Amino acid sequence: MVLPPAVTIREVGPRDGFQMEPSFIPTERKVEVIDALARTGLREIEVTSFVHPKAVPQLADAEEVMARLHRVRGVRYSALVPNQRGAVRAIEAGVDGVNVVVSVTESHSLSNARMTPEAAMAQAGLIARLCEEARVEAGIGFATALGCPFEGIPPYRVLEGMVGRAVEDLGYVRVSIADTVGMANPRLVRKTMDRLLAQFSEVTFCLHLHNTRNMGLANLLAGLEVGVTWFDSSVAGLGGCPFAPGASGNVATEDVVNMLHEMGVETGVRLDAYLEVAAAVRDLVGHADSGVLTAGPSSKLLGPYRPSASPGRVPS
Amino acid sequence: MVLPPAVTIREVGPRDGFQMEPSFIPTERKVEVIDALARTGLREIEVTSFVHPKAVPQLADAEEVMARLHRVRGVRYSALVPNQRGAVRAIEAGVDGVNVVVSVTESHSLSNARMTPEAAMAQAGLIARLCEEARVEAGIGFATALGCPFEGIPPYRVLEGMVGRAVEDLGYVRVSIADTVGMANPRLVRKTMDRLLAQFSEVTFCLHLHNTRNMGLANLLAGLEVGVTWFDSSVAGLGGCPFAPGASGNVATEDVVNMLHEMGVETGVRLDAYLEVAAAVRDLVGHADSGVLTAGPSSKLLGPYRPSASPGRVPS
Repeated sequence: MVLPPAVTIREVGPRDGFQMEPSFIPTERKVEVIDALARTGLREIEVTSFVHPKAVPQLADAEEVMARLHRVRGVRYSALVPNQRGAVRAIEAGVDGVNVVVSVTESHSLSNARMTPEAAMAQAGLIARLCEEARVEAGIGFATALGCPFEGIPPYRVLEGMVGRAVEDLGYVRVSIADTVGMANPRLVRKTMDRLLAQFSEVTFCLHLHNTRNMGLANLLAGLEVGVTWFDSSVAGLGGCPFAPGASGNVATEDVVNMLHEMGVETGVRLDAYLEVAAAVRDLVGHADSGVLTAGPSSKLLGPYRPSASPGRVPS
Repeated sequence: MVLPPAVTIREVGPRDGFQMEPSFIPTERKVEVIDALARTGLREIEVTSFVHPKAVPQLADAEEVMARLHRVRGVRYSALVPNQRGAVRAIEAGVDGVNVVVSVTESHSLSNARMTPEAAMAQAGLIARLCEEARVEAGIGFATALGCPFEGIPPYRVLEGMVGRAVEDLGYVRVSIADTVGMANPRLVRKTMDRLLAQFSEVTFCLHLHNTRNMGLANLLAGLEVGVTWFDSSVAGLGGCPFAPGASGNVATEDVVNMLHEMGVETGVRLDAYLEVAAAVRDLVGHADSGVLTAGPSSKLLGPYRPSASPGRVPS
């Protein structure tokens, strides 16, 4: 098994995670979480979304969050933007990176963004230009690239065509491939990413994975094995799937980091420090979906067995 | 990605799952679950454990379960046995297979079985002879083979030595490698199984995986990629880890089947029928730990998007 020696984790909990929380999280709490995350060794945090306040009231404080966070050197603070207006706001707020999202399938695009994929691509072009003028790095994410709850798995040639246009026509070099609702499987991830990496060698590809059907880390492994070195994940596994109430959300950052470190792949994240933040986030929102937060890191041992201390257990 | 075209699932929910349930499940309910599981296309079910009733009161009805279940042609009904007495009981009860467990690490062996691995191996030899005389197939499972909560990951040469002894001296040809507390990682699974499959080509190896740190399906994928074709899993993800209260248990059969089918690997299990049983089991015990039971199979689509039917969602 040949794996990359190191990968980059983009923490998306404050955006993809918090946006699913029904009760408003006070801005001060959000800033505390972001500041704490920034001190764990992460190199990028997607801190918010500059979306219309009525669409996502939870993130109505996007500007305030950006203004109040305490920048840690070496950490990139990016934000999602749904349209040009959002991009202008994000740039004015001082983000290091703007992330735009385009759905690959028409049904999802109409459902989520109320526009066709074609219109979303045109908008992504305008946002790329805004970012270029402002000298802010732009990234594009393809939602439902690995599965759409309405239409199933889109044909590779459709995804390839959209990535090609984003890269060759619009100038994007940071491209995220999203399994938006957790429908991907490792064979699909491997095949798709292998082809994309070969065809677009100048692009840095990210995998954005959900754990909806417990395949999150298996899909991550499949991407890792063909050379993907950038992954999105969310503190305490926050997030969710609007099409499957109660289902798991994004892969949990602590689960991702634990698996990668166990395999000798570096992330720069200090797992012990990170778990303290994850526990605080779980307490803040009142839930979590994370194996390592419950069970502890794989490397944490009980030490020598003392017969008096533990009750007998049935084997296996 | 070269994967085997088909694999065998051994359902361990009625044994590994039910044994963790604190309230006694009436024998009639257990039999209903086993009978329903047997009609989903599974080829093997570990139905109970012939352990001392005081050690695991939940499985005190082992004989009765065996006597009352309605055998389905083509389904193998096996049981775990902790010792010779259990093996005698299991054989008398008419099981098709006897599964004996030996812990690889001394700490876990002393903690779980109150004997050294050496003594457990000697006992496994006696059980093999009992089974041979009775013409009942015997299998051996190595607990903590991929990680022990007390001692960490045992050296490969220790596992290799124990497997070698079981196969060459004791005559076992069905060998299960267990990640008893969910400490394995894909690199370890791949390396270990690759070596074992090469060294013991006459043996059918099984992987028994837990999802404690959300790596269950990633570990399964790693085994599958080197040619493992037999996996344990548990209905509704029942089971658990006595060392990590609240942590996930065995990989859920429905999650395993969903991933395998999505990748084109056959299991013989009819997922829709299986999910009905999993839902009934969840209702019976009052909990579950399963992605597919919550979110539905990956292949289940919503159909064409109708703007009036779905509220808009923020992308990604």
